[in-house]
Amino acid sequence: MDKHRLPDTPFWVEPESVGEDRLRLSSEESHHLLHVFRAKEGTPFQATDGGGGFFECVLESVERRAVIGRIVSRHEGRGELPRGIQLLVGLPDWQAVEAVVEHAVPLGATSIDFVVCERSGREALGPQRIERLLRVARSGLKQSRRSRLPDIASSPRLVKAVDSLEEGERYLADAEGKPWEAAASRGGQTPIQLAVGPPGGFSVEERGLLLDREFAAISLGPSRLTTETAALAILSLSRNALANRKLGPY
Amino acid sequence: MDKHRLPDTPFWVEPESVGEDRLRLSSEESHHLLHVFRAKEGTPFQATDGGGGFFECVLESVERRAVIGRIVSRHEGRGELPRGIQLLVGLPDWQAVEAVVEHAVPLGATSIDFVVCERSGREALGPQRIERLLRVARSGLKQSRRSRLPDIASSPRLVKAVDSLEEGERYLADAEGKPWEAAASRGGQTPIQLAVGPPGGFSVEERGLLLDREFAAISLGPSRLTTETAALAILSLSRNALANRKLGPY
Repeated sequence: MDKHRLPDTPFWVEPESVGEDRLRLSSEESHHLLHVFRAKEGTPFQATDGGGGFFECVLESVERRAVIGRIVSRHEGRGELPRGIQLLVGLPDWQAVEAVVEHAVPLGATSIDFVVCERSGREALGPQRIERLLRVARSGLKQSRRSRLPDIASSPRLVKAVDSLEEGERYLADAEGKPWEAAASRGGQTPIQLAVGPPGGFSVEERGLLLDREFAAISLGPSRLTTETAALAILSLSRNALANRKLGPY
Repeated sequence: MDKHRLPDTPFWVEPESVGEDRLRLSSEESHHLLHVFRAKEGTPFQATDGGGGFFECVLESVERRAVIGRIVSRHEGRGELPRGIQLLVGLPDWQAVEAVVEHAVPLGATSIDFVVCERSGREALGPQRIERLLRVARSGLKQSRRSRLPDIASSPRLVKAVDSLEEGERYLADAEGKPWEAAASRGGQTPIQLAVGPPGGFSVEERGLLLDREFAAISLGPSRLTTETAALAILSLSRNALANRKLGPY
C-alpha cells in the first residue's frame, strides 16, 4: 500500500516567483514536495509568499527541478488577525529569544523587536542571529498556516524602539498593572503594541518612558513570569481579543 | 565592594521540615543560600513547601550544614490563583513536553496530564520522565514564586484521564470552537479543566468523548497552533480570567 500523504503545510514561494496564473517553487521547496510528499502532476498543494499571499495550487510541471504550480485560488491574508500585534521584548538570553519567536509567530505577532534594556546585560542581536530567527519564523509561519512573515529586529535602545513605532494600542506587562480585561475593552484599528521587560524587568527609567509613551500597565496575574512566558501570555490575550473582535460589530 | 544580593526566589523546604516557629532547609538548598547568596545569621529569606506553604524567614543558625530559619510570617497559597487549572495535553514529543511544563507552571497550572492519544504515536511517560518533569516544575514554582507544586501525570488513555477528573469548568481547544470570551463568562468555584490535542489533533472519537463529557469547544484563533503553543495560549486565557475574577464580586 503506497498511500501518499498530501502536504498539510504551505510551501514557501518567493514573491518574485509568483505570476498571474502560475508560481515557481525554489529547488529546496520543490525537492521537499516531490520527494517527501512524492507529488506528481495534478497533486494539489498550497504556497505562501510571506507577504500576505496564500495560494491553492495544482502541480502542473517540473522544470529544471523546480515545481511549477497552477494557481487555482488566492486567499490574501489567510491565517492573519484583523490587526497587527507588535512585540517589544527586553532582550533575554538566546534560548529565550528562540522560544519567543517559536511561539509568537503562530500566535500572530506581526513584528518582534528584541530591545537591549538596562538589565539585558548583552548587546543587540547581530545580522546572523536575526537571519537565524527569520528562518525559525518562516518555519513557524508555514506550520501555523499564516501568510505574513513578521519583521524581526533588535534595537540597541528602548527609546529608539518605542519612537520608531507607529500609532497603536499599547500595553506593558507590569506587576503593578490593572487586569487586562478592563483595559482591552477599547476598540480601534491600529496595531496592538506590547512591551515585556528583560529578565530582572525594566528599570525605573525605562518603565517611566513606556508609561509616558502611553503604554497601559497590565498585570498578568499573581505569580512572577519569565520574559518569554510573559511575552507569550500577553500575546495570547491580545490574539484572543482580536480573534473575537473579528466576529464583532466593527 | 562586596555587596551581597538578597535571594529573590524562595527556597524549597520539605513539608516535614517545617515546625511551629522554625524550618530546616535541605543541605542542597542550604548550600545555595550560604554560598551563592553568602547568607549569614540574620539574613532574610523565603521558603515554600510546595503544598501551599510560603514562609518569610530569617536565618537563625546553621546546624550540620543545614540552615535553620526562624519563621517570621506565613502566607498560605502565595502566588496561587483562586481556582485550580487542570491541563490535559495530548502527549507530544519530549521537547514539547518539557516546554509545556516550563511555561505552564509559572502560568498557574495545578495539574498537568500528558495523555496518550490515538495520534500521539508513543507510550505514556515513565516514572523517570515524570521525576524529571517534577524537577522542572519545582524550579518553575520557585522562579515564579508560587507555593503549590502541580501534579504531573501521564495517562495511558484519554477516557481514563477524563473520568478521573473531579467536577470542573471544561474547555477544549478546537478549530471549530467558539471564541473564548463568550464561553468563559460563566462563573463557578470548580477548577478550570483544559484539553489540548496531541500533534495532529484529537481523533474524531476522542473529540466526541470530550464534547460528551462537557468540554466546551473554544477556538484559539485563525492560525494553526502546535500542541505546546495551544496549551500555553489557552492556559494564559484561563489564568487571566481567574486573576480578574479574584477582583470581582465573588
